[in-house]
Amino acid sequence: MSEGKTALVISAHAADFVWRCGGAIALHAEMGYRVTVACLSFGERGESARLWKEGKSLQEVKDIRRAEAEAAAGVLGVHELACFDLGDYPLELDRADKVRLVDLIRKVQPAWMMSHSRWDPYNTDHMYMTQVALECRMVAQAWGHNPGEKVLGAPQLYLFEPHQTEQMGWKPDTFLDITPVWDKKRAAMEHMNGQVHLWDYYTRVAQQRANHFKRNSGGMSGGRDCTYAEGFESVFPRTVDEL
Amino acid sequence: MSEGKTALVISAHAADFVWRCGGAIALHAEMGYRVTVACLSFGERGESARLWKEGKSLQEVKDIRRAEAEAAAGVLGVHELACFDLGDYPLELDRADKVRLVDLIRKVQPAWMMSHSRWDPYNTDHMYMTQVALECRMVAQAWGHNPGEKVLGAPQLYLFEPHQTEQMGWKPDTFLDITPVWDKKRAAMEHMNGQVHLWDYYTRVAQQRANHFKRNSGGMSGGRDCTYAEGFESVFPRTVDEL
Amino acid sequence: MSEGKTALVISAHAADFVWRCGGAIALHAEMGYRVTVACLSFGERGESARLWKEGKSLQEVKDIRRAEAEAAAGVLGVHELACFDLGDYPLELDRADKVRLVDLIRKVQPAWMMSHSRWDPYNTDHMYMTQVALECRMVAQAWGHNPGEKVLGAPQLYLFEPHQTEQMGWKPDTFLDITPVWDKKRAAMEHMNGQVHLWDYYTRVAQQRANHFKRNSGGMSGGRDCTYAEGFESVFPRTVDEL
Amino acid sequence: MSEGKTALVISAHAADFVWRCGGAIALHAEMGYRVTVACLSFGERGESARLWKEGKSLQEVKDIRRAEAEAAAGVLGVHELACFDLGDYPLELDRADKVRLVDLIRKVQPAWMMSHSRWDPYNTDHMYMTQVALECRMVAQAWGHNPGEKVLGAPQLYLFEPHQTEQMGWKPDTFLDITPVWDKKRAAMEHMNGQVHLWDYYTRVAQQRANHFKRNSGGMSGGRDCTYAEGFESVFPRTVDEL
Amino acid sequence: MSEGKTALVISAHAADFVWRCGGAIALHAEMGYRVTVACLSFGERGESARLWKEGKSLQEVKDIRRAEAEAAAGVLGVHELACFDLGDYPLELDRADKVRLVDLIRKVQPAWMMSHSRWDPYNTDHMYMTQVALECRMVAQAWGHNPGEKVLGAPQLYLFEPHQTEQMGWKPDTFLDITPVWDKKRAAMEHMNGQVHLWDYYTRVAQQRANHFKRNSGGMSGGRDCTYAEGFESVFPRTVDEL
Amino acid sequence: MSEGKTALVISAHAADFVWRCGGAIALHAEMGYRVTVACLSFGERGESARLWKEGKSLQEVKDIRRAEAEAAAGVLGVHELACFDLGDYPLELDRADKVRLVDLIRKVQPAWMMSHSRWDPYNTDHMYMTQVALECRMVAQAWGHNPGEKVLGAPQLYLFEPHQTEQMGWKPDTFLDITPVWDKKRAAMEHMNGQVHLWDYYTRVAQQRANHFKRNSGGMSGGRDCTYAEGFESVFPRTVDEL
Repeated sequence: MSEGKTALVISAHAADFVWRCGGAIALHAEMGYRVTVACLSFGERGESARLWKEGKSLQEVKDIRRAEAEAAAGVLGVHELACFDLGDYPLELDRADKVRLVDLIRKVQPAWMMSHSRWDPYNTDHMYMTQVALECRMVAQAWGHNPGEKVLGAPQLYLFEPHQTEQMGWKPDTFLDITPVWDKKRAAMEHMNGQVHLWDYYTRVAQQRANHFKRNSGGMSGGRDCTYAEGFESVFPRTVDEL
Repeated sequence: MSEGKTALVISAHAADFVWRCGGAIALHAEMGYRVTVACLSFGERGESARLWKEGKSLQEVKDIRRAEAEAAAGVLGVHELACFDLGDYPLELDRADKVRLVDLIRKVQPAWMMSHSRWDPYNTDHMYMTQVALECRMVAQAWGHNPGEKVLGAPQLYLFEPHQTEQMGWKPDTFLDITPVWDKKRAAMEHMNGQVHLWDYYTRVAQQRANHFKRNSGGMSGGRDCTYAEGFESVFPRTVDEL
Repeated sequence: MSEGKTALVISAHAADFVWRCGGAIALHAEMGYRVTVACLSFGERGESARLWKEGKSLQEVKDIRRAEAEAAAGVLGVHELACFDLGDYPLELDRADKVRLVDLIRKVQPAWMMSHSRWDPYNTDHMYMTQVALECRMVAQAWGHNPGEKVLGAPQLYLFEPHQTEQMGWKPDTFLDITPVWDKKRAAMEHMNGQVHLWDYYTRVAQQRANHFKRNSGGMSGGRDCTYAEGFESVFPRTVDEL
Repeated sequence: MSEGKTALVISAHAADFVWRCGGAIALHAEMGYRVTVACLSFGERGESARLWKEGKSLQEVKDIRRAEAEAAAGVLGVHELACFDLGDYPLELDRADKVRLVDLIRKVQPAWMMSHSRWDPYNTDHMYMTQVALECRMVAQAWGHNPGEKVLGAPQLYLFEPHQTEQMGWKPDTFLDITPVWDKKRAAMEHMNGQVHLWDYYTRVAQQRANHFKRNSGGMSGGRDCTYAEGFESVFPRTVDEL
Repeated sequence: MSEGKTALVISAHAADFVWRCGGAIALHAEMGYRVTVACLSFGERGESARLWKEGKSLQEVKDIRRAEAEAAAGVLGVHELACFDLGDYPLELDRADKVRLVDLIRKVQPAWMMSHSRWDPYNTDHMYMTQVALECRMVAQAWGHNPGEKVLGAPQLYLFEPHQTEQMGWKPDTFLDITPVWDKKRAAMEHMNGQVHLWDYYTRVAQQRANHFKRNSGGMSGGRDCTYAEGFESVFPRTVDEL
Repeated sequence: MSEGKTALVISAHAADFVWRCGGAIALHAEMGYRVTVACLSFGERGESARLWKEGKSLQEVKDIRRAEAEAAAGVLGVHELACFDLGDYPLELDRADKVRLVDLIRKVQPAWMMSHSRWDPYNTDHMYMTQVALECRMVAQAWGHNPGEKVLGAPQLYLFEPHQTEQMGWKPDTFLDITPVWDKKRAAMEHMNGQVHLWDYYTRVAQQRANHFKRNSGGMSGGRDCTYAEGFESVFPRTVDEL
């Protein structure tokens, strides 16, 4: 068991953590990790088209999206869903917002962190989020930031899967078998009622990544069966005692 | 213990496996891996300047380099040193040579393989070796190559550290702590009498990589002490059950 | 109608043209293009695991794979399936083989050509094929090669979708709606009996690319519905009279 | 004819739209497009050396540059020249400025957009402009931004030709024949009196791109004659029904 | 002699200019260059772990770091150490701070400038600093910025060596022999009491770069002996009269 | 004066050395360098369209191209024009051909070498030539290749300007002022009668590069006037005593 271990997912919009790493969250939660999700916005302006078409107000959209995110987080076994409610399209953090994120990082002391791809010409919130994640990780490591607090070590920053991966220059180096928790991911996705068309899209993503899992674990000679997987790109090198 | 596990290092010239991954070899040998080293040439023409300056003949140079490689392999705990003796500067493999390498790969059935960087404008033997390693890995995976033989799974191909890393576009993603076997690596290096100036060079490389090991394992907050390390770049993604 | 137009697909192994551009072939055939497929090998050694497991001989494997390729080509409306039968894993062309490919290029005078991705560490036949395609395209353009023959113009070379796109550094810049011919592509795929697990895999690929088609044609404001699509990367720039 | 179609060029400084895409503007204007040019600054500080050497005041420089830009726009057939007058060296947009640009994008509803290269170490205004263009394109697509307004589809963002292309990592994928409107582009350039040395420079650029147009449309076998051309890099993939 | 020549080093934190280009500073100072160092922060929060562990206050840390930087600068022969005192982790410059840096650039009129690598996921201050250096270099070149002042020419911007070079995508194209001034660099480093572990680290860096200097100046046939060197990456092309 | 200095240009086809570095050759010849040009083929098949259209035979084409190359070399002051006559489209070197090139490199002992860009999808001869140049440079450095001969040091390998630079990923880092020898370059180009359309094309290239020379040597504040220039990309780092 991994009792006491922690992880932190930093998601620009409410649903990103569901589509892109819901399996990783559920799997690690089952292993005993306390997984915190920082949700910087509800994706209320840019990722809630259906609700706007229905004539909802901004507050209604946010309320609905929050409720969906909370429900999804519940299914996934999220330890804490920290909603920053900073607005989207564009997402912008001022100094105080960043300090709040640093505080959260320090509180969680994650074994690993996770955020968006480095480049996304379709969605500048995503690449901005990653840039902020790197900045806040650095500040959390500084002994002179709020001296006396426990400083952050050097957790990996995984970049979860963006939409249209090739356009983002995103290259997965790690495939995680999420078959044991697939039902939870699917259930969590089905809480995102405004983006129904993505339920099957990200189901297929998980199936394709499972094929890649099998190929890279042995292919046609010993490849391990896997039905659903997620892919991640690592920003930092690993340190190991065995290759 | 890792009894029964195997690994395969593919080295263009006799000394490459010593400078670039001697620590990985010794460490895994101590863990119980049977590590095979394929030495495609002795580096007789291109990496034996001192011997030529002394007026040695080609056969003498090769004999000396072979003896040095064998001595180094012995110190490192190499299970088998397979000397292909194909010549260097340039190294060239014909179809039969490649089949021989495929046969070796299949015989070893390595848990991981290792070779040179993808690009090396200083030494085209190095990048050629990696290209051949990829081709032979592929052939070893083919069910129709020598049907009936056990086909290869999907072992990682690590790229060990080239000289002047930045010029080669080589980027390590894995640091291995070789402190426990450092004495063996240093002793192995000291068998390479023609390249004495590299003993200290690669000692310093190991010290710098140890600094990187510490930084990436926690830095100034929990980074693990490490005195000597080696770095590797992975060609293929990993498949895991926990991040 | 595009009567009189031609296209040429250069496929390292028998099935590549089915999975990777079967839709483009069928669609253009329906538009009146005569589409020629050059099949350099049957993928007999490397992509016929099931047949080898059943104990088939090399000749049997090739015969079966040829029959499957012919059946698939028939369904797709391929004008000519040129089987070079050069062997695979590895695929290698000598000078005469390349001249044969140049002759075919000149005979076809394609409006566009198509081949594999530039880089493929899993399958060196694929990247070798593209390198040969570029070389032969160049020779076909030379006025001094078989003087008197009609020389080649400057057809686009599209790179069709590899497996594990991100690992290949492949980035699609063109999405083609293949919905109208989907049934043909699926039927052609179902002729490839040795790789049943890929039928659904490449069906899902087509579904995901359809999502990308819709996003890039307008997304949530005017994006065109599309159920199945294929993606391609262009090697050369386009020349246009309107953006 | 393309009556009713629209396009939007986003230019950091007053003259960029003339040198870099004057031909595209004039050509599409002749085809019936209404082409809007957003001119974020007059290039008054950084691209008006001659005027400053003559002792002009800031207001005088801006007035002269505005007049030149308007004259050039007139020659090119620009539908609307929207001068934001935000200052240059550096150019900076606050939230309100960006909203103004979003409003313009929504008003125009462009079939395609155009801006600067992604990277420019000589001129950080240029790369900043492209980053802002991507952000504002995203906001204009958001159903929750000014709900009720017509949201933006997914227009291509072309990147026009920077100075010293290779230093910017700019790679054209589209060449446009501007021969029919060359006189207009040259006339427009001749309105930019402060940068006379660029008139011939960008005439030569157009001649070189015409050579590339010919090469890529068929070269020495069927290449179409072209005397003047412009090159563009596409950010997003195309969606097509025929290759 | 180079009397009258000047250079400008832009350092995010107090110690960067010592580790990364202390040799270049001392060497050029000995040649008669007046070398100015702009120190944007003292690295008080992020690079002074030892002092914080000792319980020092922010002011004490800054005072100590300033004193160390001044001592190091003195040893290296720095003409002027301009401490901006803007804070670190994160470092942020507002418009007035940038104007101050532009003023300094114009005052110095450097033959060359120097700053950090373009990319640094470990330390976002570093890449931010380079971005600001490029922006301020551009503004300093603008005839309309403080008209009447002498505008900047086109000095090279060298990027000095980051920690973990390969992770930063930094590639040196210039090696400088700093053997004659090594004692000064070592002495300057020894003034940085909070980072004692880096003294030997950067001594080894200098030794490795000396090996690269020798290799690239002739290697085993005429390579020039060199005991300590520094490496730099150039942002801009060189202009020469002889290759 | 540079009496005694030497340089070596390796040109895949007869005319490449004229268009791409004729200025560098003439300039260094005037400075006293003995410049050798290795012309691997006459470009008889692929770059002599006009002659083939006139119905010339292969031998006639080669004779004419040789005569043109000799005339051009004469004008440029080439010390030795070594015609390998190996054929083109494709150019291929066997082991003996490569040894011949190694012998030439050793005979010349060049201060710098020059060849084609690394990547060229339009012309695979070009990128093959560079690969061979790197391999032969390496062999020429080997003490065990023809022991007793003077081995090669570590000359820079410059990559001269390809056609359509951006498509080749070629990035110049060095601009050379060739104004003093422009008349020679133009005269040499005018000996290439089969490619008249390139005379003005490469004249414009030289004019554009002169603009870049001026910008990078100071731009609008001290940039040196230059009328014609050539650009080059360096493969290896420089070693210097002053930045």
